[in-house]
Parts: sequence; structure tokens; C-alpha cells
Amino acid sequence: MIKPRTPPGVLELLPREQIAFQRMLDTIRRTFERYGFLPVETPVMELTEVLLTKTGGETERQVYFMQSTGSLDKGTDGLPEMAMRFDLTVPLARYVAEHEHDLVFPFRRYQMQRVYRGERAQRGRFREFYQCDIDVIGKDALSTRYDAELPAVIASVFEALAIGEFTIQFNHRKLLRGFFEGQGIGEGERQVAVLREIDKLDKRGEAAVRETLVGESFGLSGEVADTLLAFSRVRAVGHDAAQAALDALGAGTPLFEEGRDELRDVLRQLRALGVADSRFALNLSIARGLDYYTGIVYETTLNANPEIGSICSGGRYENLASHYTKSKLPGVGISIGLTRLFWQLREAGLVDVAESSVDVLVSLMDEAGLDAALALSQRLRAAGLNVETQLEPRKFRKQMEYANKAGIRFVVIRGEDEAAKGVVAVKDLRRGEQFEVAEAELARTLLVEREQLRALS
Amino acid sequence: MIKPRTPPGVLELLPREQIAFQRMLDTIRRTFERYGFLPVETPVMELTEVLLTKTGGETERQVYFMQSTGSLDKGTDGLPEMAMRFDLTVPLARYVAEHEHDLVFPFRRYQMQRVYRGERAQRGRFREFYQCDIDVIGKDALSTRYDAELPAVIASVFEALAIGEFTIQFNHRKLLRGFFEGQGIGEGERQVAVLREIDKLDKRGEAAVRETLVGESFGLSGEVADTLLAFSRVRAVGHDAAQAALDALGAGTPLFEEGRDELRDVLRQLRALGVADSRFALNLSIARGLDYYTGIVYETTLNANPEIGSICSGGRYENLASHYTKSKLPGVGISIGLTRLFWQLREAGLVDVAESSVDVLVSLMDEAGLDAALALSQRLRAAGLNVETQLEPRKFRKQMEYANKAGIRFVVIRGEDEAAKGVVAVKDLRRGEQFEVAEAELARTLLVEREQLRALS
Repeated sequence: MIKPRTPPGVLELLPREQIAFQRMLDTIRRTFERYGFLPVETPVMELTEVLLTKTGGETERQVYFMQSTGSLDKGTDGLPEMAMRFDLTVPLARYVAEHEHDLVFPFRRYQMQRVYRGERAQRGRFREFYQCDIDVIGKDALSTRYDAELPAVIASVFEALAIGEFTIQFNHRKLLRGFFEGQGIGEGERQVAVLREIDKLDKRGEAAVRETLVGESFGLSGEVADTLLAFSRVRAVGHDAAQAALDALGAGTPLFEEGRDELRDVLRQLRALGVADSRFALNLSIARGLDYYTGIVYETTLNANPEIGSICSGGRYENLASHYTKSKLPGVGISIGLTRLFWQLREAGLVDVAESSVDVLVSLMDEAGLDAALALSQRLRAAGLNVETQLEPRKFRKQMEYANKAGIRFVVIRGEDEAAKGVVAVKDLRRGEQFEVAEAELARTLLVEREQLRALS
Repeated sequence: MIKPRTPPGVLELLPREQIAFQRMLDTIRRTFERYGFLPVETPVMELTEVLLTKTGGETERQVYFMQSTGSLDKGTDGLPEMAMRFDLTVPLARYVAEHEHDLVFPFRRYQMQRVYRGERAQRGRFREFYQCDIDVIGKDALSTRYDAELPAVIASVFEALAIGEFTIQFNHRKLLRGFFEGQGIGEGERQVAVLREIDKLDKRGEAAVRETLVGESFGLSGEVADTLLAFSRVRAVGHDAAQAALDALGAGTPLFEEGRDELRDVLRQLRALGVADSRFALNLSIARGLDYYTGIVYETTLNANPEIGSICSGGRYENLASHYTKSKLPGVGISIGLTRLFWQLREAGLVDVAESSVDVLVSLMDEAGLDAALALSQRLRAAGLNVETQLEPRKFRKQMEYANKAGIRFVVIRGEDEAAKGVVAVKDLRRGEQFEVAEAELARTLLVEREQLRALS
């Protein structure tokens, strides 16, 4: 006998949790499609030489390789031939480069699949998790107007998910780097190093970061360090405040002005798109990633749960697939790590176990009622209800217990009395009520009840 | 520069194919839920010792193992610690055994995920493919009435998929083995061997199979061989014909009678469930698998495309999870191999590339129109339409070409003239028509048009 268990680092759900998770996936997908994004799925495995084009570092150490029994030995370069995706961005790059001539640009794709990372086993760290990504990819160029569309999608997604008030925060790499230039930090690598320090503000605090900046390795003057820190403190919620905050930054280098103009455009479009002012904020401390992003960057946080960190992040990049094609493919994208988010919401008590996806249990009182129960179940299904049929007569109490435990809301009873009257009795376990309804009216009645409750919740 | 390409043996789709594929997945899921099945997802990887409990053979040779860079060496038993699922049945067994005390029985689950097999690279063979499974698992016992529910689900699935007329064919292991007993083939292993030969009728033909049966290794008399072949020739479509065919088989051993009674019950219930007579048939040549099934077995074929083979198969089994738990868990289940089916339908020209999931392109004629285009797009989205906005003004012809190439049906135009009149012009690329409609009526008009076309198709 072998103990049944999953490997560490995966999130496996019981059915009613899975229903709640599936509803989140469905909501995200529906919203992505509302904004005109097209579905893509890629294989879980890629050729190792295709997946690991970059000088790996952290990521490469976390990659899972895939081998069948016949080929457990390593390939010629010491690595197995196939490896599993660790994000959805590298597969997107490969996909767009491979299918370039069959795609229409700007290419708007969404992808919602699991990715794999050999993380150290630790609570809240997952080796398999869902990412829900959207990206818009341009050929040669992509208007910065797409930078404003993505926060509108994020806002719609999290409004629809209804997991609490949230703020989409953004910053801009050109604004940041232009500001650094203005402070005499003109050299690219030095900018990245400073950015890396700014990125640590959350964790290390201002005093420690300031100390580093004025220390030996950076050698900034105290004045410059203070100016950088003051800059990184800028926060402004909503269109008007953010525009005012941008105005108040004073004149800057051409790069700085370019970034500021792009941000102003984004703000204007967010207003035109009707995104509520409370949903977005300028936050000049956001650095995000290090080499990848070249324009706007986003992070999204739950107002009441800042400890969860960013629940949706992304930004603008210059060239998606330089390893695979000579075409220049700039883009902008965001990603939601849904497995981690779901786990954290559950930990914080913010997601409930869902009711069953089954709406109705058609009960069975005696053998003679079987055919009628089957036929009734089929009519309810044809009307759009999810129905389970009790196939063997059991004590009524047992059937009620079953429905209750399974989270099924309605139990339909069609005993002899009811059959003679042409009605059925309905137990509504959610409301704790029982009522009778003409059999011909049953489907419509239950659909209305279901819609009412959905509208309320 | 690395050539962007997928590993062999995977099916990667372009967006409009993916939309068609996704619609099939959605249809299957919706139908599974209509019948009261609950969603389950399991991790792609299982612990090797959990996954490979059986004395592997073919399957074990096809298993993919998963290893991170840090642990490319083999585990203590010579195999890596984690392996990837090759079907959804073993993970179901592990899941039910692991979560036994948190599940409600009979446990009705559906699972639609990809599985992995190290198949030889060959056209039409996939190393990664979707399976869409449903199973009902009982604790200690499970009424054979569930055997009739599954064909009703299959019928609903393939009616909804609308890929052509189909027939759900079934046979019964008890009927078969009982019949063998009646012919003096009483010993279990010998029955399995004969079954294995019967299973080859399709490929080898009757004459070759007969030769084997009367040959040295089996040593059956010519009379017995003829009786077996005559039995395997029985086909009967629909309730009445199938009942009559069962009657005509004459009396048999207790096991035979048990199987026949169960089949009769299934037929009666299929009628009560309103499954059309043309959808199901008794076919006594079906053997399916070898040791696993113990009762009814199903295969489903497309009437016009028998060369595709079975598109949905399954049956009744005695005990799901004997490797993991002492509880007896009998069940009945079916599986659709959707990747292979989709590929075959496409090869046979039976699936079209879908229209885009994007319903509407809101065009943009000049810079001044941007805010109005964004606001209009949001109103259409709020009404339930999938909308892409043209974010930069381009020549109208270019925008139409884009919509056409992308498969977007409606292009909405709001030029100066239209704006002054409070109307928008709509190009319907599907019908090749153009019309004007009041802006306030636009969403409703497009929704009606969309529904009309869906109702037609």
C-alpha cells in the first residue's frame, strides 16, 4: 500500500475550492476577451536550447527538465532535450517568432496556463502555478496608447473578481532614468544599480538605502541621495492628482520629458476609458524587474491587504523575441499569478468555498419514480440547470444530508402526492425554505431564483 | 539566433484555431456540469512511487520524469523523484484515496487537463494531449444505474459539439465472460486471451482470428469458434432492437444473465433519459482494454468517419484505488481525447477556423475621435461584447483589412458626419453589409445580430 500524496509545492483543491478557483479563471478569461485579447496555449515543454537562451542565473537553476525513461541520460550539451516553461513570456516570444507570418499585428494574446519552477519547498511557494497573462505585441513599433489600455483591463478584472478595493500603481522607466540623468547619474549600468537600490526601499527602509547611495560603491552626494529619495516618495491617486504631481516635478532631460509625456497620455486615456480615479495611482518608487522593462511599469495592490504584495504586475518592453527573430517586436503586458493569489486570499479568509456547481438534486423516493426523475432531470438540464439525479431510492433525510454536505442548493421532490397534483416540492437549502411549484414552471422558477442570488452576491 | 520551434509531438494552434478548440473545451465542460459533475484539477507531476504503482510495461516506458537542474541525478531507486501523469485515472485514484474523508460519495468528478506520454514521434501521435474525463466513484458500492447516465452525457456532449452523427456502442464484460463460460472457456486467463483475440477483429478480420482460435494455442473447436464469432457480430441500434437482440441470445450462465440484466436496465434508462434511439447501439464485438473493466464498456464512433476510431471510450471498473487505500471504490467513467479528436477533425476538414472571439473593432478616423472611441468601446464591453479599439488613426482601408484578416465581424465607424447625427456606421464583414444605427442602440443591435448568427450555426 502506497501513501497517496502530492509532491511538495503544488496547490491541489477540493471540488468546492476548485469551483471557486475555476470561477476566478473564467472571470479573468471573460474580461481578457472583452478587451479583444485572443487565446493562446503553448505546450508545457519547450526544447531546452529554445527555452534557455538567456544566461540563466536564478531562472535556469529553477528549470525543470523532462525526460522519458528511455532517455534519462543527458543530451550532448549536458542537459536534457526538453525543459518545462517557467513563465509564459519566453513561450510567447517563441510563439510570436515562430508564427510571425500567420499572426495579425498588433497581436493581442492572453494565456492562462500553469508554469513550473524548482523553488525551495516552503509555505506559500509553488513549484506549479497558474499565470494569467496578456500582452500586446507590435511589429516594428507599438503605440504607447496600449500602455493605458492594460490598466483598464486590470481594473475590469479585479472589479469583476470582487476581492476588495485595489490600486493599480505605475511608474515609468524613462521618467526614472531621465531623473537620474538630471542628477548626474548618466551611465546605464550605474542607473540600473541605483534602480536596484530604489527597488529595495520597501524592504530596507529609506535610511539604509540612503546610506548605501552615499556610501563607497555609489558615492552620491547627500543632496543627490535626498533628491532621489524625495522623488521616490511621490504618490498621487487618480487623474488630477497624478497630473499635478507630474507637473510639480519641474523640468528635466529629454528622456525625462518623454517619460512624463507618456504618463500624461496614459492618465488622459484612463479618464476617457472611465477607469475610476480611486483605481490608479502614480507611485515613483516602483522599479520592477531590472533590465527587461523600458517604459511604463505596473504593480497592483489590494488596499486592505498590502502584505499580499503585488497581485498583478507588468510593463512595457522594447523587443520581445530578439533571440528568435530579427523582427523588432515591442510590447506591453501584465501577469496575474493566480495560484499564489488564490492561496493568499484563502489564507486571509477572503475567498469562500463555493456552493456546488450543481444547482439541483432531483431526489428519488421509490423505484417507481425513477423514469419520471430521469425525465425531469433532463428537462431541467435542457433549460440550463446543472442537475444531479438520485438514482437509487434512499431515506429522504439521507438525500437531504447529501445535498447539504455537497453544497447543492435545491432538492426537488416528486412524491406520489405531488405527482397526483402535477406539482413538485422544492427545498431551498440556502434559504431554508420549502415551496411547491407546478412541474411545468419548475425550471423557470429555479433559474429565476439562481439569477436573483447571483445578482445579490 | 535560435530557430523558434516546438518539440515534436505537440499540437500548438494559431489563435483562431485555439478559439475553435477552446469552444469545444467549454462545450464539454458545460455539458459535464449540466449532469452534476464537479471539477477537479491535479498537478501535472506526481511522486514517481505514487504514479508508477503498477508493473508498468508499455505505460511505464512512456512516462516522462521531471527534474530540476540541481537534481539531475536519479533517485535512490534509480528513477527521478517526480513523474508526469500519463492519464487522468491514476491521479483520480490518488486524489480520491488522499481526500477520501473530504469527499461526498458517489463522487462525480470531471477533469480536463493535458497528459504526457513519450510516444514515438509520428504523425498524429501526441506526447502532450488533452483528456476530458468524467467518472462516478462509489464508496463500497455503486449502482449500475450510473452505467446508463454516462451514455446520456456522451450523447449530450457530441450533440452540443455538432461534429456529425455518432453512435455510442456498448458491450458488457459479464455478458462476454458469461458467454465464454457457456462455451466451456471458464478459466479467467483464458477468457482474457480470447477477449484479446476478439478485440483484434477490426484489424485482422474474422478469418484470421478464427484461425488463431482453432489453432494450437487456443485449441477451440471450429463450432465454438464460429459461435464466438457469430456472437461478436451482434449489432443492434436503439432500444427496441437492442432489447430484442439480447432476448435472442438465449439462456446463459448466471454471470451471462447478470450482464444481460444490467444491459437491459441501461437500455430502459436511456429511453427514460430521452436519448435518441439512433445514438446508441449494442455491439458485442467491443472488448476494450483488458484487465481493467469489469462491467459495461463503451466506445463512440462518428457514423460518417469510422476511420477516426473511438472518440469517447470507457466503462465500469471494480476498484479504483486499491494501491492507495483499503476502501473499495468501484466506478464508471469515460474519456475524450480532445487533442487527437481535434487534430483528426481538422485533417478531415470537419472543423473550421473560428471567427475571432473579438466581436467588434471600434475604428478610429482621426486623433480627435480617440476619447469617444475609448468611451464607446467601454460601453459595448459593459453590454457584453468583445471589443478591440483602434488606438491610432489609420487609413480606413487598412482598418478594414485588419478586421478582415483577424476574423472580426463588425467594424464600427464614428466619423464626423455620424457623430453629428448621433449615429454610428457598422460594417458587417460577415454579411457584407453596412448600416447606420443610433449610438444608444448600437450595443443591443450588435448583440441581437450575434445571437441570430449563433442560433443559425
